[in-house]
Amino acid sequence: MPISLGELAVSVGCELIGDPDTTVDRVASLQGATPESLTFLASSLYTAQLPSTKAAVVVLRAEDAASCPVAAFISDNPYATYARMAALVCPEPLFAPGVHATAVVADSARVSASAHIAANALIGERTTIGENVVIGPGSVIDSDCSIGDYCRFVANVTVLKNVRIGVRGIFHPGVVIGSDGFGNAMSPDGWVKVPQLGGVQVGSDVEIGANTTIDRGAIGDTVIEDGVRIDNLCMIAHNVRIGEHSALAAMTGIAGSTTIGKRCLFAGKSGTVGHITVCDDVVVAAKTFLSKNIVKSGTYAASFPADDAKSWAKQLARFRRLGNLFERVKKLEK
Amino acid sequence: MPISLGELAVSVGCELIGDPDTTVDRVASLQGATPESLTFLASSLYTAQLPSTKAAVVVLRAEDAASCPVAAFISDNPYATYARMAALVCPEPLFAPGVHATAVVADSARVSASAHIAANALIGERTTIGENVVIGPGSVIDSDCSIGDYCRFVANVTVLKNVRIGVRGIFHPGVVIGSDGFGNAMSPDGWVKVPQLGGVQVGSDVEIGANTTIDRGAIGDTVIEDGVRIDNLCMIAHNVRIGEHSALAAMTGIAGSTTIGKRCLFAGKSGTVGHITVCDDVVVAAKTFLSKNIVKSGTYAASFPADDAKSWAKQLARFRRLGNLFERVKKLEK
Amino acid sequence: MPISLGELAVSVGCELIGDPDTTVDRVASLQGATPESLTFLASSLYTAQLPSTKAAVVVLRAEDAASCPVAAFISDNPYATYARMAALVCPEPLFAPGVHATAVVADSARVSASAHIAANALIGERTTIGENVVIGPGSVIDSDCSIGDYCRFVANVTVLKNVRIGVRGIFHPGVVIGSDGFGNAMSPDGWVKVPQLGGVQVGSDVEIGANTTIDRGAIGDTVIEDGVRIDNLCMIAHNVRIGEHSALAAMTGIAGSTTIGKRCLFAGKSGTVGHITVCDDVVVAAKTFLSKNIVKSGTYAASFPADDAKSWAKQLARFRRLGNLFERVKKLEK
Repeated sequence: MPISLGELAVSVGCELIGDPDTTVDRVASLQGATPESLTFLASSLYTAQLPSTKAAVVVLRAEDAASCPVAAFISDNPYATYARMAALVCPEPLFAPGVHATAVVADSARVSASAHIAANALIGERTTIGENVVIGPGSVIDSDCSIGDYCRFVANVTVLKNVRIGVRGIFHPGVVIGSDGFGNAMSPDGWVKVPQLGGVQVGSDVEIGANTTIDRGAIGDTVIEDGVRIDNLCMIAHNVRIGEHSALAAMTGIAGSTTIGKRCLFAGKSGTVGHITVCDDVVVAAKTFLSKNIVKSGTYAASFPADDAKSWAKQLARFRRLGNLFERVKKLEK
Repeated sequence: MPISLGELAVSVGCELIGDPDTTVDRVASLQGATPESLTFLASSLYTAQLPSTKAAVVVLRAEDAASCPVAAFISDNPYATYARMAALVCPEPLFAPGVHATAVVADSARVSASAHIAANALIGERTTIGENVVIGPGSVIDSDCSIGDYCRFVANVTVLKNVRIGVRGIFHPGVVIGSDGFGNAMSPDGWVKVPQLGGVQVGSDVEIGANTTIDRGAIGDTVIEDGVRIDNLCMIAHNVRIGEHSALAAMTGIAGSTTIGKRCLFAGKSGTVGHITVCDDVVVAAKTFLSKNIVKSGTYAASFPADDAKSWAKQLARFRRLGNLFERVKKLEK
Repeated sequence: MPISLGELAVSVGCELIGDPDTTVDRVASLQGATPESLTFLASSLYTAQLPSTKAAVVVLRAEDAASCPVAAFISDNPYATYARMAALVCPEPLFAPGVHATAVVADSARVSASAHIAANALIGERTTIGENVVIGPGSVIDSDCSIGDYCRFVANVTVLKNVRIGVRGIFHPGVVIGSDGFGNAMSPDGWVKVPQLGGVQVGSDVEIGANTTIDRGAIGDTVIEDGVRIDNLCMIAHNVRIGEHSALAAMTGIAGSTTIGKRCLFAGKSGTVGHITVCDDVVVAAKTFLSKNIVKSGTYAASFPADDAKSWAKQLARFRRLGNLFERVKKLEK
């Protein structure tokens, strides 16, 4: 559906240089753009592509406007402005209200009339489903859950009992929320399962990536605060708390009872041990594992970039002979 | 449902200091406990919280009894004793026997009358479902499987053909058992799939965490022995054997044809290469990868704790100049 | 179903030493083989087991034929030849054409008459399902997808809108294709979701392991080329391209916008950062992370094998004192 540049400028609130009546109906990269396209320039890596773009309009910073051959939206934060405009140019499809004939809704569940319950979905006893919620096909929302307005469970999501979720959450396929934490006590007869009796609290404006798992608390709750973003295949163990607006990239693991502060960023395959506290505004590099409390905001790292295998083998051999080297230096010093 | 301390003491078999007629109906942490709560003290980290607890009763070691302001259960292993009592105080809900109208059960399957087959579940041809088994919603138990008594498949679990499982297993959402192993033979035309024709044997008292995958064997079986505990998002490749009572924390990966001994502990994100043998009673630290046979029980490690990023960058630079350092020391020695 | 060695030799095209009328009806390892078994010798690790095998026939290299006590198929590539023969000896069960009564197929979907749509599966609007496709139980194929002939979605697979897949693909349980990429723009109000508007292109002869996730592109498509093999629990982020015949072992993660060449091999738990290009024929060792463009084919590594924990602690201490060591050597040099 075409939308005019004037309408976009007003909706998102930014300056337009160009004809407000021009329309766009798609998004594209600077290079791939056509005269129907909205695009953006957010990184200097792509500045060289600006003069030749065929887009209708480019979201960019004021200092790049002079090089722009077409209309421009001026923004201090072109990526966020583009994101907001793209959601208007290419809106998510609407889901018709109603419960599919193959869905199973418990008698005691309360499902708002505006919610969409898709094929083969299940809503458990005493669970509340808010306004305009979308429960995608094959999703299971177990008993005693509370799902806030405008949440979307894309497909094949599993939410177990006693999970409370705020508004506007997005949960991608294969997400599991409320699985039992890994609580085992050793005994002479083998492991004894420690009952996992807490729940999970998920705030508002949270997005959880495909096949990520969030365990319920052992006694208290696991907590995901407002605005948190978690990528695919991450693991949030029992009794963890993730602070507001923190973001965890794919394959990150947070071990049990750890508390992460606000606005922390975890790069791919990073994580923490259990029972630590990480303060606000901490950045963890890819593949890096925090092993103790972090009390100072900043960036933390501990990974080795790949080397060609022969060089790496030599380097490993040197590393293993470090003890020998220390002794030789000590001897020389004498 | 309230339960008396006397009944708990008798059921679990431990000494009670306090009034046997006092009742509890919930569990709590030492700090969060109310006069209706059972709690426990298992780690010296929490000893300071004992004198002010408001619990009805605390499970603790004899040496801590003197500091306990309320009733106490005396145990050499307070965590295991707490676990057993918590299962009595907060029992799992019972599942009514029967097959849900939307479940699909093959004609040749044998499902015990006491089993609970939930909505949208599927039971394949010639599969046997034991007494009191719970097949949760959306779960698929494919053909020619055998599921022992009291197993529970929480929801959206997938068990493929020719998988045999003992009694009392718990399988959390998204678990996949019996997926094809990663067997590929290179040819001039590209990869040729090597048919994965074995099955999976899972012992009794096994618990498998959400979204963990266990592949079937290529020719023989993949084997998970009795009492094994596996956390979320782990990968057990084809032809692996995991010995009795071993426990694998989240995101651990065991590559193909590796044999793990009994009572081994793998911390988060650890693992092994393929085709090795790990003896009994081996502990593998977080993020550590075993790369060869382990013939001596003990703890193994190989990870670097995170440092602040600037210090780490310097440290990496030094690491890369190790060869140079060795040469300089050699020169000094001459 | 028994098959004669003569028929196998003709079908796969290799030399047979032995009686062409002998039949086999199963596969086995060299040691476990019975007179009804096909087996193979592909690695010198198992040569010692050849003289005592009880198999009907062994696939092996010409130089091993003299030590073979039974019939032999001669092949330069015994593993690939075995793979092709095993698929004939133990063929996959056929799936009857038709749509199960509990499956939900959108009116505008086009499903070939030869396709098998299993219980509780869902086919979305305008989606095309090719000849002989198997959509396993609980699988969701969303709207506007195109699924090529002979593809198989084993069970509980989720394919979201606008995904195009070639022929003969195999997708194991829990696979998610087309989930939103992790696109977030920071703003003073928190993260703004960047709409993920591209699709996913999957070539022909692709196999994807259990619980692996492949995100859709942000603007363009994520691309998996022909013949790619991906193991369980891998993560392919948005806008990634994986070149023909590359293979990724379990728990590998490829971050956003990275391009992987042809015939690359990623060992378990390996990966790359985002926005890099990896040339053809690159091998990445287990647990190794590529952090920059790779322009030369070869093997790359960067991991530390496990040591016993006490030795490792000492080694870590030495590593941390590297700066001190450099200074001491410098002083000695003066």
